Amino acid sequence: MLIEYVFAASALSLVVAGYVATWILKQDTGTERMREISNAIKVGAEAYLMRQYRTISVIALITAALLAIGIRDPSSQWAGAYTAAGFILGALSSNLAGYIAMYISVRSNVRAARGAMTSLDRALKIAFRGGIVFGLAVVSLSLFGLATLFLASPLSVGSDPRLIVGFGFGASFAALFAQLGGGIYTKAADMSADLVGKVEAGIPEDDPRNPAVIADLVGDNVGDIAGRGADLFESISSENIGAMILALTPAVWGLFGINGVIFPLMARAFGLIGTLIGSIFVYSRKNEDPFSSLTRGLIITGVICAAGFFVLTEVLLNGDLNFFLAALVGIIGAVLVAWITDYYTSYRKRPTLHIANASESGPAPGIATGLAVGMESSGLFIIVIGVAILIAFGLGNGFQSLGAGLDIGNPTFQKGIYGTAVATMGMLSVTPMILAMDGFGPITDNAGGILQMSGVSEEARTISDRLDSVGNTTKALTKGYGVASAALSAFLLFSAFLEVANLRGVDLARPEVFTGALIGAMLVFLFSSLAIRAVGSTAAVMILDIRKQFKESPGIIEGKSKPDYSRCVDISTKAALRNMIAPSLLVVLGPVAIGLLLGSEAVGGLLMVGTMVGVLMALFMNNVGAALDNAKKYIEAGHLGGKGSQVHAATVIGDTLGDPLKDTAGPSLHVVVKLLNTITLALAPLFLLALLK
Amino acid sequence: MLIEYVFAASALSLVVAGYVATWILKQDTGTERMREISNAIKVGAEAYLMRQYRTISVIALITAALLAIGIRDPSSQWAGAYTAAGFILGALSSNLAGYIAMYISVRSNVRAARGAMTSLDRALKIAFRGGIVFGLAVVSLSLFGLATLFLASPLSVGSDPRLIVGFGFGASFAALFAQLGGGIYTKAADMSADLVGKVEAGIPEDDPRNPAVIADLVGDNVGDIAGRGADLFESISSENIGAMILALTPAVWGLFGINGVIFPLMARAFGLIGTLIGSIFVYSRKNEDPFSSLTRGLIITGVICAAGFFVLTEVLLNGDLNFFLAALVGIIGAVLVAWITDYYTSYRKRPTLHIANASESGPAPGIATGLAVGMESSGLFIIVIGVAILIAFGLGNGFQSLGAGLDIGNPTFQKGIYGTAVATMGMLSVTPMILAMDGFGPITDNAGGILQMSGVSEEARTISDRLDSVGNTTKALTKGYGVASAALSAFLLFSAFLEVANLRGVDLARPEVFTGALIGAMLVFLFSSLAIRAVGSTAAVMILDIRKQFKESPGIIEGKSKPDYSRCVDISTKAALRNMIAPSLLVVLGPVAIGLLLGSEAVGGLLMVGTMVGVLMALFMNNVGAALDNAKKYIEAGHLGGKGSQVHAATVIGDTLGDPLKDTAGPSLHVVVKLLNTITLALAPLFLLALLK
Repeated sequence: MLIEYVFAASALSLVVAGYVATWILKQDTGTERMREISNAIKVGAEAYLMRQYRTISVIALITAALLAIGIRDPSSQWAGAYTAAGFILGALSSNLAGYIAMYISVRSNVRAARGAMTSLDRALKIAFRGGIVFGLAVVSLSLFGLATLFLASPLSVGSDPRLIVGFGFGASFAALFAQLGGGIYTKAADMSADLVGKVEAGIPEDDPRNPAVIADLVGDNVGDIAGRGADLFESISSENIGAMILALTPAVWGLFGINGVIFPLMARAFGLIGTLIGSIFVYSRKNEDPFSSLTRGLIITGVICAAGFFVLTEVLLNGDLNFFLAALVGIIGAVLVAWITDYYTSYRKRPTLHIANASESGPAPGIATGLAVGMESSGLFIIVIGVAILIAFGLGNGFQSLGAGLDIGNPTFQKGIYGTAVATMGMLSVTPMILAMDGFGPITDNAGGILQMSGVSEEARTISDRLDSVGNTTKALTKGYGVASAALSAFLLFSAFLEVANLRGVDLARPEVFTGALIGAMLVFLFSSLAIRAVGSTAAVMILDIRKQFKESPGIIEGKSKPDYSRCVDISTKAALRNMIAPSLLVVLGPVAIGLLLGSEAVGGLLMVGTMVGVLMALFMNNVGAALDNAKKYIEAGHLGGKGSQVHAATVIGDTLGDPLKDTAGPSLHVVVKLLNTITLALAPLFLLALLK
Repeated sequence: MLIEYVFAASALSLVVAGYVATWILKQDTGTERMREISNAIKVGAEAYLMRQYRTISVIALITAALLAIGIRDPSSQWAGAYTAAGFILGALSSNLAGYIAMYISVRSNVRAARGAMTSLDRALKIAFRGGIVFGLAVVSLSLFGLATLFLASPLSVGSDPRLIVGFGFGASFAALFAQLGGGIYTKAADMSADLVGKVEAGIPEDDPRNPAVIADLVGDNVGDIAGRGADLFESISSENIGAMILALTPAVWGLFGINGVIFPLMARAFGLIGTLIGSIFVYSRKNEDPFSSLTRGLIITGVICAAGFFVLTEVLLNGDLNFFLAALVGIIGAVLVAWITDYYTSYRKRPTLHIANASESGPAPGIATGLAVGMESSGLFIIVIGVAILIAFGLGNGFQSLGAGLDIGNPTFQKGIYGTAVATMGMLSVTPMILAMDGFGPITDNAGGILQMSGVSEEARTISDRLDSVGNTTKALTKGYGVASAALSAFLLFSAFLEVANLRGVDLARPEVFTGALIGAMLVFLFSSLAIRAVGSTAAVMILDIRKQFKESPGIIEGKSKPDYSRCVDISTKAALRNMIAPSLLVVLGPVAIGLLLGSEAVGGLLMVGTMVGVLMALFMNNVGAALDNAKKYIEAGHLGGKGSQVHAATVIGDTLGDPLKDTAGPSLHVVVKLLNTITLALAPLFLLALLK
């Protein structure tokens, strides 16, 4: 059966990931000092993740119990148990993927640092291979989990999709805590290290005298690696789930039968194969910009994925080329989104230069321009998403209708929506490669920190800096990609929700739907507020400790005694875990409360408008932060007075402000957007019993 | 006939306004120097407004011509002409109201300044009476215009509402330019005066040596007075229009007939009478806080309005007490919204204190906390709005249904929506009094500036400072009120749009509606971005000129020679007018383009989600700005190190950043929200011919 190919592809990917991991572990780990630092990072990151997963497990088990008891459905007596089982598997797989990613990243960093002492190519290779293990692990675990559930309870018309729905909910539930907790950890450590170390004590970045420096490096692993891994694990899982459910609508099932259900899984499998091949092409030719190497790998992956879609539509979708074109629309959308993100955040482009110029009049004009750039960046982005949805919908139903006057009960509509599902698959097909490029960033960032702290050759540091700046770019692009895929998969999940909740549409002109929608938009603002504050309050505790350490032993600043790194690590860990609870509960309980009070359609409004506002706010915050960061880098590259000038001071303020926006609140919103969708999908049966209707 | 009462009330209000204005003009204008300064402000403000109105007239005439030609409706051969005629009258009335408001404010300022040299009560009385003229003029002109149009073409079932629809569109069109242009002017002048004067040259606020000081004072009149006047002129007009159209739905017409159509106008008339009486009670008893005097006046107005609603429901709405209760819901909503705004922005409350405390770690943590406070402030606010809509809807149809499964074609739904209309009338009934309190702010601000520049007694300055700080509070509250009324009247106008566009609902699950909605949300972000930038680029030109003046004649700083104030006034004028065009066109053409491409329902999505996002972003920006401003004031009151400390410097940066958010982008968004509604209402017939459907 076809599903075996899916297993084969995920198994193959896991084997390759294991093989690459073994290769990495065999590499040289450099000097004693380097190993010592790397070890401190490893211990900190493992301790944090273990505690985080413990916290998540407790909350997840309670939630699973509530699901098992609370979800009742006359048509399926096991509804609650199925949802709970899927939920636990989803949460576990997400945590496992994050753990594997962190496991390899804290081991690649020191080896990449050692590689930088040899050559650029060597460092690139090690760091990128660390990323590859990350990307393959995340994607193949998701695919493996879903394929298993599919085998356990094959989907067909009338069958109960709650196992996979629960899986999606579990994955996004775990992802929210992972991304938010990791984001709080990393930015609180970063801000405290900067504010006390750089500003107050006047010591450079990543200086071993800074008590928070290890916490800062740990943060890259738990926030940027484990957090983003969970985010995209969740994206690809829920996209697959949404597409599988939509394949069950009468019109699509009538056309493709079970093939339409398996198509999303096969498409993902092709993405893995494409990445395996594409990654071979990532090496640095003489003097080649590392970014071009990564881009080459990505392009090759994209081409293979496109070819894969061609084959798959031939075999599974009756050779209907329209669906192949829909997948292309998704792939092209991904490219455009990356280009737009680059335009708005790169310091070679006008928007960021505007920020730098405005900063000449002071920090306030600079930051105001930064906010304006962030808001503006949504323009082209939204147009790309909107046009992609319209074209894909048209391709799906042979341009019979744009949807006016149709609803989810209509065959033309169902085929159109499946077209958008295929476009979403197209966009997400290159995910493992994107993740590899993303994971590359924190690994080289860490490598740079290790080199700096161990005081080895200036030359190696230059190489790692060069890779680090490429890492910053790939990180910004991944976030743009993350938002775009969240927007597309959310549109998909809406329709899946309508199908599951037995709704014909979501009409905003009804007062309870309007109110639900307003509350959805408000939840996004409230969540962002709590996330930003969580960073602030975590940082406040760390700042006090760093000051205390400097005061208690003045030898630290003179370089005579060593600071107690583990105290800062411990503080971040505890505070991040404590502060991630409230915002997460808000976005979990908010939709449930509205659903129980006002019913399914109101939740639909909450969900849709919450998603749109979430996408815009995520874009805004990610891009404000990245543009302010790069405006600072532009000044540091020697423009407009360079380091130490008034303008530099102004941009440093902007950069610090942007940090919690771009690395905590923004990326957590990607997860919120999808969580809103999976939670409503999972709890749809409950909302039929709303109080006020 | 009843409509005569409406004319009587607006005529009476205009007469009273004229009488109060004459009283103000009779007051003493102080010293020669004071008159001189006041005259410069007057000349600058009049020159700006005249040029602004000229620009608006040109664009409005072109638009009116396009409306006359473009709007076709098989059922009414005069559709285009009617819309165009209403449009012109709306735009003219809005401009006239703004002009009258500015006329009286630039004459009250110097008299209030002179009053402050006598006593607090005297200054309060003059400034508040200036505000009263403002409030009465704005509201009675709107009422007068609508009543005239109603007489010219009485509304009944099947009649053509295009005259009043055009009026609403014209009013919001003119308001957008007025609020945005004025907002750009005032903040660009403020920022430039601060950045070059206070920061670079180290001279105090409102110092006569600052070349931008007159431009700054002019700004208060053209932005805060004329701009806000146009904003609320538009709010009350479109609320009346929406309610009148909804009174024509079969169920409401069946219940109340023509009385339901006249009810909104009568309710507004009662608001005018209530304000006339309430304003008598605004005087400062011995040592009384001026804010309590204003609150007393507002409470009395509110009580009279409530009584008015009771009488009106008895007489016009068959004595159905539910509608009286719906009006009370609106009035209570207004009170709650004011309370919430105060909580989030007052420096006596926790959120602003958090900002001040966070600023101890530097400007970035302070601003980040400010952003978090702004985002958080939406929470309670949205809940109040949502609950108000649900209760009012329930009251309207006797709690038969919350709307689930109903649409605008259903009688239960129509009655419910009329309930929300009455709640909106309730909230907006106290508008003239709110406007008076709002106008009070810029007048005392100006008075303080005049006193400072003319160097008269320290004591008078203390009095004007005390009034000024009250003015800051009332200004923040008015903005909260403005957003709340925008949200409520938008919900009303949605339903009016559905009725006019012959739609049954707006279903977000359709791809073209989803896309339209995403674009609506995006337009809000893009507009905000352009508005913030417009302030930046206008300020950039002024900053260069101020520096040049200081350089050209060094005598200015020494106080030996006078700066050329008129150059700065001229620069602000030109740049503000130039920079207001692009953002305005964006929000005018955006919905038109989507409507022509994707049709009515997609525009409906744009409209609704654009409104929600607009409301949230307006709240966010208004409150971020006000909270950052007040955090600075808290430090300046001597806390955490007081003026001149590091913390103070940090909060000054935050305040400067907040300025364009709270006084340009935020208030302009109030208008955008309503413009989206009136433009789609006016152009509804065009969207039936959409290209892609």
